[in-house]
Order: sequence, then structure tokens, then C-alpha cells
Amino acid sequence: MEPIRFETHPDRYKHWKLEFDGAVARLNMMVAEDGGLHDGYKLKLNSYDLGVDIELADAVERIRFEHPEVRAVLVTSLLDRIFCAGANIFMLGQSSHGFKVNFCKFTNETRLAIEDASENSGLKFLAALNGTCAGGGYELALACDEIYLVDDGNSAVSLPEVPLLGVLPGTGGLTRVTDKRKVRRDHADFFSTVADGIKGERAVKWGFVDGLYPNSKYEEVVGKRLQELAARSDRPGPEGGPGIALEPLEPRRDGDQTRYRYVTMSLDRARRIARVNVAAPESEQPTTPEAIREAGADFWVLRAFRELNDALLDLRINEGEIGTIVLTTGGDAEKVLAVDRILTQHADHWLVREIIHYIKRTLKRLDLTAKSIIALIEPGSCFAGTLFELALAADRSYMLDDPDKGPSVWLSSMNGGPLKMSNGLTRLETRFLADPGRVEKVLEHDGPFDPIEAEEAGLVTFAPDDIDWEDDVRLGLEERVALSPDALTGMEANLRFAGPETLETKIFGRLTAWQNWIFQRPNAVGEKGALKVYGNAGMRPEFDWRRT
Amino acid sequence: MEPIRFETHPDRYKHWKLEFDGAVARLNMMVAEDGGLHDGYKLKLNSYDLGVDIELADAVERIRFEHPEVRAVLVTSLLDRIFCAGANIFMLGQSSHGFKVNFCKFTNETRLAIEDASENSGLKFLAALNGTCAGGGYELALACDEIYLVDDGNSAVSLPEVPLLGVLPGTGGLTRVTDKRKVRRDHADFFSTVADGIKGERAVKWGFVDGLYPNSKYEEVVGKRLQELAARSDRPGPEGGPGIALEPLEPRRDGDQTRYRYVTMSLDRARRIARVNVAAPESEQPTTPEAIREAGADFWVLRAFRELNDALLDLRINEGEIGTIVLTTGGDAEKVLAVDRILTQHADHWLVREIIHYIKRTLKRLDLTAKSIIALIEPGSCFAGTLFELALAADRSYMLDDPDKGPSVWLSSMNGGPLKMSNGLTRLETRFLADPGRVEKVLEHDGPFDPIEAEEAGLVTFAPDDIDWEDDVRLGLEERVALSPDALTGMEANLRFAGPETLETKIFGRLTAWQNWIFQRPNAVGEKGALKVYGNAGMRPEFDWRRT
Repeated sequence: MEPIRFETHPDRYKHWKLEFDGAVARLNMMVAEDGGLHDGYKLKLNSYDLGVDIELADAVERIRFEHPEVRAVLVTSLLDRIFCAGANIFMLGQSSHGFKVNFCKFTNETRLAIEDASENSGLKFLAALNGTCAGGGYELALACDEIYLVDDGNSAVSLPEVPLLGVLPGTGGLTRVTDKRKVRRDHADFFSTVADGIKGERAVKWGFVDGLYPNSKYEEVVGKRLQELAARSDRPGPEGGPGIALEPLEPRRDGDQTRYRYVTMSLDRARRIARVNVAAPESEQPTTPEAIREAGADFWVLRAFRELNDALLDLRINEGEIGTIVLTTGGDAEKVLAVDRILTQHADHWLVREIIHYIKRTLKRLDLTAKSIIALIEPGSCFAGTLFELALAADRSYMLDDPDKGPSVWLSSMNGGPLKMSNGLTRLETRFLADPGRVEKVLEHDGPFDPIEAEEAGLVTFAPDDIDWEDDVRLGLEERVALSPDALTGMEANLRFAGPETLETKIFGRLTAWQNWIFQRPNAVGEKGALKVYGNAGMRPEFDWRRT
Repeated sequence: MEPIRFETHPDRYKHWKLEFDGAVARLNMMVAEDGGLHDGYKLKLNSYDLGVDIELADAVERIRFEHPEVRAVLVTSLLDRIFCAGANIFMLGQSSHGFKVNFCKFTNETRLAIEDASENSGLKFLAALNGTCAGGGYELALACDEIYLVDDGNSAVSLPEVPLLGVLPGTGGLTRVTDKRKVRRDHADFFSTVADGIKGERAVKWGFVDGLYPNSKYEEVVGKRLQELAARSDRPGPEGGPGIALEPLEPRRDGDQTRYRYVTMSLDRARRIARVNVAAPESEQPTTPEAIREAGADFWVLRAFRELNDALLDLRINEGEIGTIVLTTGGDAEKVLAVDRILTQHADHWLVREIIHYIKRTLKRLDLTAKSIIALIEPGSCFAGTLFELALAADRSYMLDDPDKGPSVWLSSMNGGPLKMSNGLTRLETRFLADPGRVEKVLEHDGPFDPIEAEEAGLVTFAPDDIDWEDDVRLGLEERVALSPDALTGMEANLRFAGPETLETKIFGRLTAWQNWIFQRPNAVGEKGALKVYGNAGMRPEFDWRRT
């Protein structure tokens, strides 16, 4: 099967029309029925597959980086009386378990990116539901700040997954209904079991939407509200100057090697290991927001993390059998630390802010990747500041304690706050839950940590000497890749997110795990399962009634 | 298959020896190899099945109610150099999916009950690991306040589920390692992937145990620490007077009817519905702690909730096909509210405290039961105070709006704090997350709520009038019982626990869901799955390496 690529551009969108009008952008959904990623299903009624969501994710990123003048985004549909029918069921029915799970993971990340843009970039989203809004369609609306529903006596919002398909809404619907919109649990229960959903005043009263509008007053209600949302935004507006273009990454792919400019990835298929290296910049990097803007997508840290993001998505969707990522870095730590200082100093500038949150989201993508992550810290490596987050994101790290040319690791202010995990804590805070005072202590440390210092400070897992190094690393990897891939996925999903829970960790930890379970069950995917028989006229699902 | 019963008594224990010595109780594990609930496996090396855990749960309850003089509990083993090998793997291998899941749910509730006794009843638990302590054995230790490990150069603590069995530790192990003991995630990762576990000083340094003792200093270290823990307890001691005996419930079972004294349960197998009714007391109830002690296990609220607890466990383990519980109540609300007043007034008395926490745990058991819960509030019903929690625990409630003989519901101070859910909130707080002010408002309401008031206050889901009642309820139930049982289980596990997460909700929401997923996967339970081939000499698991 052809690998799926995640880079796209508005010029090539098949499913979305992106329009700009001053402070407002309009994201119009008009899914091309025959434009699916695979044959075998038609994307009717604005239903979507991964390709549709890749464009949506791209659009949201481009609004953030390329259009600083935009302060409010309208999400609506160009189809008559149809907003969005949700994920395409026939696509799900023919997909492998692993694909379904990774499809949901990506769509969840896209919706969380919308909420991240609202919370952290002053970009407010309004969903105008011009008609049928079901399942993933309503979940997309739930990711927006406000939801308005056409009041035509017919259009409803619904989560019909349980009654129609025997699965859960897979994109955070249940969690956002109870935890974001705080709908009462009995109302949520009723709503989630009626295939037709809820419309009109009841939808407003119970909190599923924020308001209704008659078709004739669309511009009046929605247009006015968009202007109000725009007025509350802290985005720079036109005087913020032009944005930067997210240029294509153009990786060179050669067999099992992928070479980006700063990231290289090579697959060891026999051992099911991907080796991913991130290189520090070689040239001097810009030191002012204006210079960063001029550098644009060539600015090292933005480019490096866009490359890492692309590599991670490639591994998840196209390389299911790869079970372990070995992370390394290389280059001049001082250059990375210099970039960190500039990011910190200008964190309030809109573009720098976007870059920081982009790094944050990419690191979260790493945390949520269902592969074991091992960081190797060797001479010549560059685990400094922002790049040290890679070692903190790893399940384990090994640092070679070579007294002559021993590597160092460095912390910076970027490890102290801006790059929070899904649980709302930094990776250092999560690591030192037992002793929060250690966070400040290691951040106050001046200069590099040598291997012994790093191990004593708790920054790395093991620091074997040069006699043990090769055996320790080899054995560690050999043992890891021999373990059950399912047990590792479940174990890592539990161990990586200690401490507080958020809407985000609930979606990935609780909702996703239940959905994965249901996605395996004969009641959903068996020959007579609800997901399998959906749409086959005359066939009804047959259930094994035992409750577990 | 013979139904499994949950009532037992120390006189009948096969697997534990319970000893009392002043302020200290000793819970000695010595599992009878041939004493398993089913044939086909031997409970070697203090491995356990559900029968072993039923005795443990019983022992903890009896220490709380029958032995107020006990302030510290030692959990240890009478086998030489073996503490506990965890859940019996051959038992798991031959169990159905539903049984495995409900087995883990019960063992989790038992360990949480140990923690509840520590947090709320001043009963401190010390685990003395006299030898091998693996998997569920270490998870039992993790539920204790402190863990001491024998330092014999050999004995280790371990969670070998991932490396040996391809499943997760199923009794909260991963969650307690990261969130209770706050072990660093990379240490936890290493620990959870090495079958032999960790011993000696490293186990202490990394936080897996609290201390070591050589065999020769067992009494010195453990005995001394038990006395210290006992000294810090707020339990009454000998002057608290005798405890009360938890007498057998002796339900009368007749076909699909089970009659306890206050609880009746009848199964409608055709529709897969259990109708459970809880009756208010008919006689006057005691009004002082001394009178409550004299009434003992006959005190209405204790007896009624012990009966409900037993009925719920029966439904879970023995009645898998029952998908829905219809909850009703009956009797004199004033008698229930009078009991609530006495419980509130004497909440500090050790016995009243135990009764309140018992009610709390039983209601949590209801929240965690994987069956739909519908409350019907009709004339003659008695949803008052503590019994109104049953309606609040329901996924939906229907209240008949009959203007002539319309039922009422009542709140009491018992709805305002003591009966917290697993998420740390009361059911009213969880219900009104969107508008926390409503909690206080409904609690301040004087007297009964009629159906219109109850619906407007948000206390019930629907209040149909007598013309609609029959159709609404019938249709609601018909539609519910037709839905996919798996999708309902996942949906309810998400919708019932809005708001904050706790160690407890993490165990049931996150860990359990991942474990259920893994328990279905061929890599665990297929012909060549790790759980299936374990113990078959010469057979090694064969994995499908795709990561999801």
C-alpha cells in the first residue's frame, strides 16, 4: 500500500475551502466524495477520512503561522443542509485495527490543536452548523469555542456511534460533552444513545450548543459573533506584519532512510527499530523576532520540529511494525541554547509564541506515539535545552560515562515551563513528582551536567561506563523489542502520564483505551458486528449480550 | 456453573489466617493449593483466585466493624520465602474475558478498600514481604501504607506481567507505582519490563519499598514499625468498646428472585433486566451510637447496603447477560431521613464512621458496575437522602408526575459530602459541574421536591405525566437493552466520571480499559499468545508485531 503523506497545501486541498476576510478566516468543508485516500468508500455527506483531516490540520497550522491578522475562524460547510456526517463508516469498516486507532489519534490531535490555538494563540473558533451534524461532525464542533446550530426544525447535533455502530465517539465527544461543556451526565447519557440526536431549544438548554439561528439570520448572528470573538483576541492584527510561509520539507527518501535537513530517520526492520537523529543548527541563528520572521520556515528550531513531526506521523501510520524509536542528537549545544534564550526572551511575540507551541505539540505527539522511546546520549550528542526534552520524553535514557570525551546534557529555561505535556506539567515536573523541589534545583544548575552529575540529578536513567555501554544498550534494546507490542502500548500509556489528568489525558488515556477495546470486540467488528453490518440493507447486528 | 457467593467468615477461610494481638491484627496469607474456586488450576506459591480475594475483602471489613481495638494491620505470608506470586495465571488462562475483567474489578475494589480504611478509619497497613513478591502480590503490597522487604540477597518485588505474560498488572500496579509511590517514570519503565524485578538497596532507593530487614531482625523492624503506626491511629482502642458482628445475610433465592430483608432482586432474563428494590425501615431505628451498636448488623442502613452490595456482586459475576439494573425504592421517607440525621450527628463515632464509609463504598461499587442503571421514581417510592444517591448514581431517572399521588424526593446532609464518588466529588457536585452553585441551592431546599420541582432543580432526568409514563419508561428500557453491551460499557465508564481524576478513577478508567483491550488481543489470549502459552515448557509466544 502507498504510504500516506502528511504534508499538503491549500492549493492542493480537495475537501476544504479556506477563505480570508480581514480578522476572520472561513474554513468551509466540502468533502469530495471521490477524493478519499483509498478506494472502496465514497465520502458522502461531508463524511471524512484521514485525508480530509490532514487538510484540516494543515489549515489550522497555516492560519497560525501564515495569517497573524486572523483572530477568529468560522468552521462551517458549503453543502446544503449538511454540516458533517462524521468519520466515514465504510472507511472504518474496511480499515485495520491499527489504522483505526491511529486515525482517531491524529483526528484527536487535530481537534486539540484547535483548542490549543484558542487557548494559547488568541485564535477563536466558531462552528456554524448549517445542517446535519453527526458523530465526528459534532466532535469537530465541540473542539470550537462556540457552537451555533441552524434552527430549521430538523437539523440536530448527535453522537450516534453507540446506537448505530456499537462503538464510541472516537474524537473526544463523550469527554468534551461532560468535561468541556459540562453537560449533565443523565442528559449526556440520553443524548449519546439516541441516533437522531437533539435539536432546537433543548440542545441549547442542555448545553450541547450555544445558540440557534434561523437560516435568514445567518450573517446577523454568526457574523456578529465572529466579530465579537475577533475583538477579544490578542493576536497582532495587520500591524503584526506578514506571517511566514510553511514551505514544504522535501525529505529525501531512499529505501529505509529518510533525510530531512536536520532530522534523519533510518529503519532497522529486522529489529523493528527506527533510529531518529535531530541535528543542532550549524549556522548562526536569528536573534530577533524580525530576523526570525525573515528566516521563516528555515529557522532551525521550527524546521527541525516540523521535520520531527512529519517523521513521527510517518512512523505511526506507515510503519506499524516498528516498535522502538532510538533518539539521538548531534551538534553544537551552544547554538541550541542560544536559540532557547531567544525563544524565551521574545516569548510574547506572536511568531515566537507560535513556534514554542509548535514545539510543544510535536513533543506531545512524541509522548503519544505508541512505540517505545529510548534516548542514547553519546559523545558528540546535543541534548541541550529544548532538545533535552527528547531525552525526558523517552521511556529510558542511557548516557555513556566516558571520562575522556564524556557527553554532557544541558538544561535551559525551555525545560522550565513552556513545553508542557498533556497532563499540564512539564516533563521535569512529571519526572520529579516525588520531590518537586528537584525541578528548581536542576534548573538552577549552571552549565553542563556530566554523566555522573546527570545520573545523580535524576536526569538520565543509566550512565554505564565505556566497558558496559555496548552490552547494556544492546541488551536493553534486545529485551525491549522482544516484548508484546500490545502490553508495551498499554504500559507506556499508563507510565508516561503520571500526576494530574486533563481533558486531553482523559481523551487519550480513558476514552481511547475503551474505544480500542470496543474496536476489537466481535460486537463491533465481527461478521455480525454493528460496525460491519451498518449500511447493509436488511442486516441487523447480532450481539453477544454478556456485559464485561 | 455454580454461582459464586461473596459472603464468608474467618471460621471458613481457606487461605488466610487472621490473628489479633491488641492493637495489631495479622493477616497471614497461606493459600490452599487445592482450594481454588474451580478445578483446573492449583494455587501454588500463594497465587490467588477470586476465592482468595473474597476472603481478603471479608477480613478487611471484619477488622473495621468487629475489631475497633485494631489500629495497625500486618499483611504477610506464612509460606517460607514466598510472600505472594500474584493472580494465578492458569486460572486467568482458562477464564472468560468477562470473568477476567470482573475478577480484576473486584480485586481492585478490595485494594482500594484497604486504602480507604487507612485514609478514613485510621487503620494502617504494613506489608512485610518475607520472600518472592510478584505481580498481584506486589500490587497488594502497594495498597498498604508501607512496604518492607526481606533482605536475603534474593527476594525481589516485581511486576512481571508485561515481560512474562504480555498483559498489564491488573490491580493498579502501574498507577500506584507512578502516582502513589511517585516512582520516576524511567525507573518504573525499567521495573515493569524486567521479569525478575528489583531487590535490595535499589528497591529502596528507587522507591519501590520503604525499607529492608534481614530475617533475623523481622520482629525488631516490623514489630516496632507496627507499634509506631498503631500509635498514630485515631481508632478508639479497647475503650471504644466491642465491635459489631457482621452476621450472615441469608438471602432467600427462588429461581430468578432473591429476597434479602430490605433488598429484593428479580431478573427478567428475556429483557436482560434486573429489578432491584431497596426498602426503607419499617420499625423505629436507633438514635444513639450505643443503640446502633446494640442493633449491630440489624441496623437498617448497614444491613440494606450490605444486601445491595451482595446483590451487585452477584449480578456482576454470575449474571453477565443482565445488561440493565432498574432501581426502585419503597417505604417511609421520614424514617430514612431520621437515620441520615443520626449518621450526620454522630459521624465522628468510630462505628457510625464505618457505616458511612461502607455506604460510600457500596455506592462506588454501583457506579463501577458495567450495567446500565435506570432509577424509577413512582408513588410509594422512598428516594430520600442516602437512598436518593441511588437515583443520582443512575444513568437516568424517570419520575412520574402524577398530580394526585405524585411521588417526592428528598435530600439530606448525606447528599452533601460524606458519600463521595471515585472522582473525589459528591454525586451532586459531579451532576452540577456546569453550575456548582446549584449544589448548595438544592441542599438548602426545605422539605420534599415534587416532580416538577425535582425536574426543574435538575435532580431527575425526566418527569413524564401519567399519560406518557408507561410508554416513556417502556421505550427507554427497550431502546437501552437493544444497544451494544460493549459500547454501553465504554460509554458509561466515560460519562459517569466527569470532572477531576484520582488514583481510583485512573485505575478504573485508564488502566482497566487498556487491560481490557490487551485481554482481547491475540498477542495475549490467542493460541500463541503470551498468556496462553505461559507455563507450557518449550512453547514461546508468537506476536503480531504491529503496534497500534
